[in-house]
Amino acid sequence: MATELPGTSRPGGRTERTRVAVLRATLDLLAEVGFIDLTVEAVAERSGVHKTTVYRRWESREGLIAAALRFGTDEPWSPADTGSLVADLRQMALEVVHALTTPGQRELPTAAVLAGFHSERAAEALREFYQDRHARAAVIVERAVARGEVPADTDPDEVTRTVCGPVFYRLFVSREPVSEETADVAAEAGGAAARAGVLRRRLPRSGDGS
Amino acid sequence: MATELPGTSRPGGRTERTRVAVLRATLDLLAEVGFIDLTVEAVAERSGVHKTTVYRRWESREGLIAAALRFGTDEPWSPADTGSLVADLRQMALEVVHALTTPGQRELPTAAVLAGFHSERAAEALREFYQDRHARAAVIVERAVARGEVPADTDPDEVTRTVCGPVFYRLFVSREPVSEETADVAAEAGGAAARAGVLRRRLPRSGDGS
Repeated sequence: MATELPGTSRPGGRTERTRVAVLRATLDLLAEVGFIDLTVEAVAERSGVHKTTVYRRWESREGLIAAALRFGTDEPWSPADTGSLVADLRQMALEVVHALTTPGQRELPTAAVLAGFHSERAAEALREFYQDRHARAAVIVERAVARGEVPADTDPDEVTRTVCGPVFYRLFVSREPVSEETADVAAEAGGAAARAGVLRRRLPRSGDGS
Repeated sequence: MATELPGTSRPGGRTERTRVAVLRATLDLLAEVGFIDLTVEAVAERSGVHKTTVYRRWESREGLIAAALRFGTDEPWSPADTGSLVADLRQMALEVVHALTTPGQRELPTAAVLAGFHSERAAEALREFYQDRHARAAVIVERAVARGEVPADTDPDEVTRTVCGPVFYRLFVSREPVSEETADVAAEAGGAAARAGVLRRRLPRSGDGS
């Protein structure tokens, strides 16, 4: 874990290696023991970086966890391009279902959602992450608009929330099982709502329709 | 709190008073301090019931919290009957928005969702609660079917999940604000998806269309 190429000694190299080692250890521990039981001591031990160095850089347990969540979600992602709105949405929903149900994979996103309840800084990191994902998912709706499948002023974020909402609701609120069928239903619902024109951008009171 | 009529001395009266006092104290503390920091000691102190009595009856902290969640959600609820599907759904979504955002009210449902992450017994209590709410909400779709607004085999639970999912998603996952507009959008999306026929009951593989 946190293996680095030997000999990377450019300026900042060591600092960067330390940063990566600490943040990876934090993510691993978050997945293993969860938000509540994660300690800076355990992160220090796992990463081989002294506790005082961790505190000097990240100030607090909460700051460290928020930084790790940002680091762990800082990977490029782009949605599938299948040629149809509902099929694109289904792929996105399936990715969510798999990410949140596959053992060895689901632990980290689950711990991240949980951390959001306990820490305002973790909640802020979550907010940024989903904002980024919404922005990346927007191309699904842009392509559907270009194909004439949905109205030109369809709000991509609302489509994403309509599709992903029920998956998370089942998992974390109503505590019901999720499956590929869950993804199918959610994608078709989001697609139908978009086509019906009820997920258009809503403008502030002054509202011109551009 | 937990005020009882004096002189209720029928068989079981005292036991019932004790039960109610303990479960109310548990709910109050859950809202005040949250799942993690709730102790049986504090419940005993708040309720005036001895700790050993609490353990004798509920076995563990987790068992006590699960029982309190069942007790606290054991109130009758029925959805508004406005005469139209989307308006009924909007009322339901608004109730969810208000319950989860009003200070002094939002603490308990938020603590309950959080408890579901930490305790399988709490998750089971949540599951039962939402199952019950889904069952009670089904009349919204039944009335819409009777009015000919949606196909006869529309699945009421899927409509409820489509409407409530995005509200919870914003609050607990993407950490975005919710408002009455959130309820409007969610209700219209659920209504449009139901009308489009994409939220019908799905039958097992053998699937005859009855």
